[in-house]
Amino acid sequence: MAVYTDIANDELNAFIAEYDIGKVVSYKGIAEGVENSNYLVQTDQDSFILTLYEKRVNPADLPFFLGLLDHLAQNDFPCPTPLHGRDGEVLRSLAGRPAAMVSFLKGVWHRKPRTVHCADVGRAMARLALAGDGYALSRANSLTHANWRPLFDSCEGRADSVASGLHREIEVELDWLDENWPKDLPAGVIHADMFPDNVFFLGDALSGVIDFYFACNDFLAYEIAVCLNAWCFEPDRQFNVTKARHMLQAYQQIRPLSEAEMLALPALARGAALRFLLTRLYDWLNTPSGALVKPHDPLQFRDYLRFHKGIKGLAAYGLEL
Amino acid sequence: MAVYTDIANDELNAFIAEYDIGKVVSYKGIAEGVENSNYLVQTDQDSFILTLYEKRVNPADLPFFLGLLDHLAQNDFPCPTPLHGRDGEVLRSLAGRPAAMVSFLKGVWHRKPRTVHCADVGRAMARLALAGDGYALSRANSLTHANWRPLFDSCEGRADSVASGLHREIEVELDWLDENWPKDLPAGVIHADMFPDNVFFLGDALSGVIDFYFACNDFLAYEIAVCLNAWCFEPDRQFNVTKARHMLQAYQQIRPLSEAEMLALPALARGAALRFLLTRLYDWLNTPSGALVKPHDPLQFRDYLRFHKGIKGLAAYGLEL
Repeated sequence: MAVYTDIANDELNAFIAEYDIGKVVSYKGIAEGVENSNYLVQTDQDSFILTLYEKRVNPADLPFFLGLLDHLAQNDFPCPTPLHGRDGEVLRSLAGRPAAMVSFLKGVWHRKPRTVHCADVGRAMARLALAGDGYALSRANSLTHANWRPLFDSCEGRADSVASGLHREIEVELDWLDENWPKDLPAGVIHADMFPDNVFFLGDALSGVIDFYFACNDFLAYEIAVCLNAWCFEPDRQFNVTKARHMLQAYQQIRPLSEAEMLALPALARGAALRFLLTRLYDWLNTPSGALVKPHDPLQFRDYLRFHKGIKGLAAYGLEL
Repeated sequence: MAVYTDIANDELNAFIAEYDIGKVVSYKGIAEGVENSNYLVQTDQDSFILTLYEKRVNPADLPFFLGLLDHLAQNDFPCPTPLHGRDGEVLRSLAGRPAAMVSFLKGVWHRKPRTVHCADVGRAMARLALAGDGYALSRANSLTHANWRPLFDSCEGRADSVASGLHREIEVELDWLDENWPKDLPAGVIHADMFPDNVFFLGDALSGVIDFYFACNDFLAYEIAVCLNAWCFEPDRQFNVTKARHMLQAYQQIRPLSEAEMLALPALARGAALRFLLTRLYDWLNTPSGALVKPHDPLQFRDYLRFHKGIKGLAAYGLEL
């Protein structure tokens, strides 16, 4: 949860006056997004989400993120739409921080997603891959293969303080991925963080995807690898092949995977598991011991990684060549 | 901010089905109230606030708090109204905690209140004093004079670790209050925590008061003493007599103070300052050093206390006998 910056009324009223959305009747900091401060703003016309970008977001990336939301919405992908001010701008300043308003997306995220939701996410990933096509800006993935070894180095050899043998296990995996990370796969815009808390549903129908602040250009199939990790494991950390099968089938009804993409999926899934293992490990090691906000357990993704290492073939993901 | 408990969709849907308020289209944890978990729930009919009562609230007190909101609303005091389920009940259980839904109150709280807002708060206090009359339940104030010495004792003599001399200063004040705490003043229901973040405005007009979880029976004038501390000091900790004068004048237009209440006001103001000094001191001493949520500075209220000790008479509050 995250509200790092409080906003004075006068500041907010001056900010809102730049848009044609009526007068503020309520604004409340909400527990959504971990990197930024988010407010649910209600005016006498509608509800909106106001985001103040905090220091973990590079201001130079904001035109990419906000322009992407515009581009995706224009291509009928369900996501928040940035509000353009009377001056046409989407990005301005509030309380000393870069800030933007986006439309309010109805829906709730599923704490316990079922197979039907995984299929919806499969379709959403494929639709995003197509809708992102033609977007003029690009942004390198700052958390992909090339970045994992430096990220691991920044953990200063302290992985074994979390679990005995973890340091060596990560080293071996980094070496394996250096050898096996795919090189030529279809690439484009991906969300790169499409976890359940970023996907909203109304009833069982997907209503939209939020929080595009890890979006970037990368292999399109890497998005699937992230979602296999994010959606298809059960609370006991067992992989649910039924969920994966439905996710991949739904995806392919909209965007069929090439043989190369399918064959690369196990390596991509291992890489995605390692990416979240490493960022969680870093956060775990760098959170003060008495902190009230407890970081996520990195070992969840070590266990996911071990699953991907152990599979005998694509059938483990419910996939047939 | 406070969202201690996450709620699964199925649980929430089952809970909402107990009311006649439509289907959930969104729910978000909000940064409001420090003791409980609060959600802004939007249905296809309206917005509501859902509160899950966490361990700092005594479940035995909940009928008093929720009944009070009903009683006040029936007497035209602007506050959230508890929703009664189809079974008539306001208090039920969600995610293993006592939980209740209240109406959504439009408005924003003023981070930098001006004199006009202090006058509004004066009127609101007086209206609350009258509207609370006849409420059948009662609840002793667990943070009034009799409780301050035990609270200080629970700080285990560590006050000087916050500021040199603080321990002795509090001891002297406790002794003075033992001699000078008023005994016979008009009593009734008070909010007891009417700080700016609990008072909502639409424009400059007060739209309502929230967060009644310190409400209790006590001297009605003690409410004023709390608000003199909460509203009438400037950010540099200087007392603003103009704000106090307007607050007290507005109050008395609705409920004139007796001479005994006026004469007791300096002692009540000292007691109120000490009450917040002590609770903040306790929280300060008992928050882990690395905690992400920093406790409020207790010394703010030491400085307020020193102001009240130094006044030459009621004119310091803009009051004439």
